[in-house]
Amino acid sequence: MAQTDDDERTILSANARFYRAMAAGDMASMREVWAEHDRLACTHPGHAPLVGRGAVMQSWFDILQSPPPIACESPRALLFGDLALVSCIERIGEHVLAASNVFERDGRAWRMVHHHAGPVQDGGLPPPASPGRVH
Amino acid sequence: MAQTDDDERTILSANARFYRAMAAGDMASMREVWAEHDRLACTHPGHAPLVGRGAVMQSWFDILQSPPPIACESPRALLFGDLALVSCIERIGEHVLAASNVFERDGRAWRMVHHHAGPVQDGGLPPPASPGRVH
Repeated sequence: MAQTDDDERTILSANARFYRAMAAGDMASMREVWAEHDRLACTHPGHAPLVGRGAVMQSWFDILQSPPPIACESPRALLFGDLALVSCIERIGEHVLAASNVFERDGRAWRMVHHHAGPVQDGGLPPPASPGRVH
Repeated sequence: MAQTDDDERTILSANARFYRAMAAGDMASMREVWAEHDRLACTHPGHAPLVGRGAVMQSWFDILQSPPPIACESPRALLFGDLALVSCIERIGEHVLAASNVFERDGRAWRMVHHHAGPVQDGGLPPPASPGRVH
């Protein structure tokens, strides 16, 4: 299935909604961001993976007691039929993290099924104008 | 689509092949583990996301010059049609990491399209008999 601009826009919109919910500490929105079923996984920075809606939602409930001032940068979407991966950079104050967010198509919407974030070391970000490494 | 034991077995087999290739420094196997197309992403510990087969394969070529003595533990597979997510723990000597690996169905095989690994802090692993948090 070819990836259209419309797909990319709606996927990145779902990704942006996730970060707005996190920054606002909006647990009701966070529940809506994630898919309703139990095939959810989430790996928070420094922690082991959580699997299942109960464990994942409880972790967000705990985190959103003190919402992080988080901003998402440089999101890139890859489409695989009814699933999409967004790779992006997260900034929380001085801290820089790399995140992988997976969304599942749900009618016209995209709902999150996986989030993984971990720290980027000093020097781990490419310079803005980097042409990237090629094989 | 219901997740069958056979699906889980083949997905976890693909995941195990990835770790065998890494531990053995076997670049030919690593190339076969990953899907042939360009919709690949990879976030190595401490680094920003890489996107595209060229950048991802170059990173593995560099890493496999000194293969890490890596072992995968506690893999759990979630199936989403033709895509599957494996969440697991990686051990490299004393270091513990959490990983997210995404595989795409390719006929009867599963090929990797995404890998993300990051460190687990001391105390970040649940005790072995933990019942898990529930909502």
